[in-house]
Amino acid sequence: MNGNYTEKWYMKSGNEGDVVISTRIRLARNLRSYPFPNRMSQPQRQQCDEKIRDALLNGNSALANHFEYLGTNDMSEAEIISLVERHLISPEFARQTDGKLLLMDDESVSIMLNEEDHIRLQVMRPGLDLDGAYETADKIDTLLDEQLPYAFDDKLGYLTQCPTNLGTGMRASVMLHLPALQEKGIIPQLANTVSKLGLTIRGLYGEGSEPKGSIYQLSNQVTLGISEKAAITNLMGITKQVIAQERSYRENMKNDIRTVDAICRSYGILSTARILSGDEFMRLISNVRLGVAMGIIEDINLDTISWLLISAQAGMITAKEGHSLDAAQRDIKRASLVRNTIKS
Amino acid sequence: MNGNYTEKWYMKSGNEGDVVISTRIRLARNLRSYPFPNRMSQPQRQQCDEKIRDALLNGNSALANHFEYLGTNDMSEAEIISLVERHLISPEFARQTDGKLLLMDDESVSIMLNEEDHIRLQVMRPGLDLDGAYETADKIDTLLDEQLPYAFDDKLGYLTQCPTNLGTGMRASVMLHLPALQEKGIIPQLANTVSKLGLTIRGLYGEGSEPKGSIYQLSNQVTLGISEKAAITNLMGITKQVIAQERSYRENMKNDIRTVDAICRSYGILSTARILSGDEFMRLISNVRLGVAMGIIEDINLDTISWLLISAQAGMITAKEGHSLDAAQRDIKRASLVRNTIKS
Repeated sequence: MNGNYTEKWYMKSGNEGDVVISTRIRLARNLRSYPFPNRMSQPQRQQCDEKIRDALLNGNSALANHFEYLGTNDMSEAEIISLVERHLISPEFARQTDGKLLLMDDESVSIMLNEEDHIRLQVMRPGLDLDGAYETADKIDTLLDEQLPYAFDDKLGYLTQCPTNLGTGMRASVMLHLPALQEKGIIPQLANTVSKLGLTIRGLYGEGSEPKGSIYQLSNQVTLGISEKAAITNLMGITKQVIAQERSYRENMKNDIRTVDAICRSYGILSTARILSGDEFMRLISNVRLGVAMGIIEDINLDTISWLLISAQAGMITAKEGHSLDAAQRDIKRASLVRNTIKS
Repeated sequence: MNGNYTEKWYMKSGNEGDVVISTRIRLARNLRSYPFPNRMSQPQRQQCDEKIRDALLNGNSALANHFEYLGTNDMSEAEIISLVERHLISPEFARQTDGKLLLMDDESVSIMLNEEDHIRLQVMRPGLDLDGAYETADKIDTLLDEQLPYAFDDKLGYLTQCPTNLGTGMRASVMLHLPALQEKGIIPQLANTVSKLGLTIRGLYGEGSEPKGSIYQLSNQVTLGISEKAAITNLMGITKQVIAQERSYRENMKNDIRTVDAICRSYGILSTARILSGDEFMRLISNVRLGVAMGIIEDINLDTISWLLISAQAGMITAKEGHSLDAAQRDIKRASLVRNTIKS
């Protein structure tokens, strides 16, 4: 969408990258002067969209130059889907007519306008970087706050359309790769434990007992009666425990020739297949990611895998192609993308 | 078994190598002065063994230096099995106590002594080479004939224990790789046709409708009332027709992305797997052989595949290891052998 090429945030892996794929901070904010989005008129929505846009783009911050104001009306269906795949917009936002969006050039910051709240600001970072992500979110939040009359209550904190976001309005989450815990069937027990600590864990690609790619999102649930800092510290502490647990199970798997065989074959198939469905891709790339993290596979690194995890999704492939593709054509394009990426 | 390393005949591919793996000529001969093996006494058998051995090894031919006289009593079970896998002895011969064998250093000629007949002389060649194989067989046959009183009848020809070999005592065969004909379900129809022409076709590894590796043996059945030359000409003509048919079906498969996908994945798995059962190996190497023949895979050639087809068999792996291996250990060794061979 942006003509000038900027390296995207998801082309790199980060801290604790063997287990943590990425970190996300999301802030929900509303303006005092408008009703919540579900009760807005169309002219109000447009006015509100533009007010927020101007607050960011016309502000004094150097950040402004890195943002673009986008409307889903100007995008193809594949482009809209690909924004969801990059976690830049929600599936609900994708279904809106002419949803407006402020997007940073490296795609690490996106601001959905008038989704559930007037402002849904989201910052993403590779690896485990809750402090870094929060710092950026807080900076942009402050910038907007200086120019926009936020709906804020001294007792309740930030007011949001849905009461579950009241207070900090913050959702902090980490995207975790947990193949060993999944393989050992530990996730349900883990989900039970973290829920008692105010967190929730769920499969990111499919909610079943074995989500695709063994990728999970661990996030804070409590927004009321807790500071942002305390919420982040809580999430950080539990994330570190989950990382340690996952690593310890991986250590046990290291000497299992069947695990090594499955990992190596997955790499072999990804390197050679001419047809790759999305589901098979997720299953194989998860094995390969585990293999790279365990030092079994050395021909590819975590950066490349992070990039592939985004780029090999259906909407991304179709958007890149520039015209519609049926599932069979897409599976051929996906295989070609993955093969050529691994080779180079 | 032979300390001096000689390149084996099966390390090369030959004429029409895309379809024809190898050619074999087998001659059955008996000595006038002894009863057939199934009615021999032990002292007679030993005497007969030695008589044939001396006829070859003490003759004036330069060939003598290339032969070794071997007894299965001096071999491990794995070594005996590996001789069967290299088609140097029959499974029946492997079960005999102290079967004697004359083996040429490149393993292209083997002479089983007192198997079903006193002499079972076999010559193998890579690719399609019926004339070349017959020429060598005839040369050794003549050499033996000069010194041994063959059981020969002017009307019946060479006398053999089983009447199906009476006459020429010759079985000529070609080992064919027919993945396209097998895939298309053409083999039963082909078997029916060739049987009317005095030939038989059967799966070499498993007799079912889909033998392992899609490898078939096409051989002459008629030995009585036909010259060796006529039998070979007949087999040659039909082989060429089968080759043409296989190639034409392959041509149609070339543009099928699913075929290309299956071929490429097979190569990917063989290159990376850490565990490979014998059955899976045969299935994958057959796909890869097809891929090489079709020009889809260029990183490996038919020579290497010919060598692997022999070397990755269970007995060969165990014999090389020098001690017994259970199936799981063998599958790991097989994967390692195949992976390292492809890499180098």
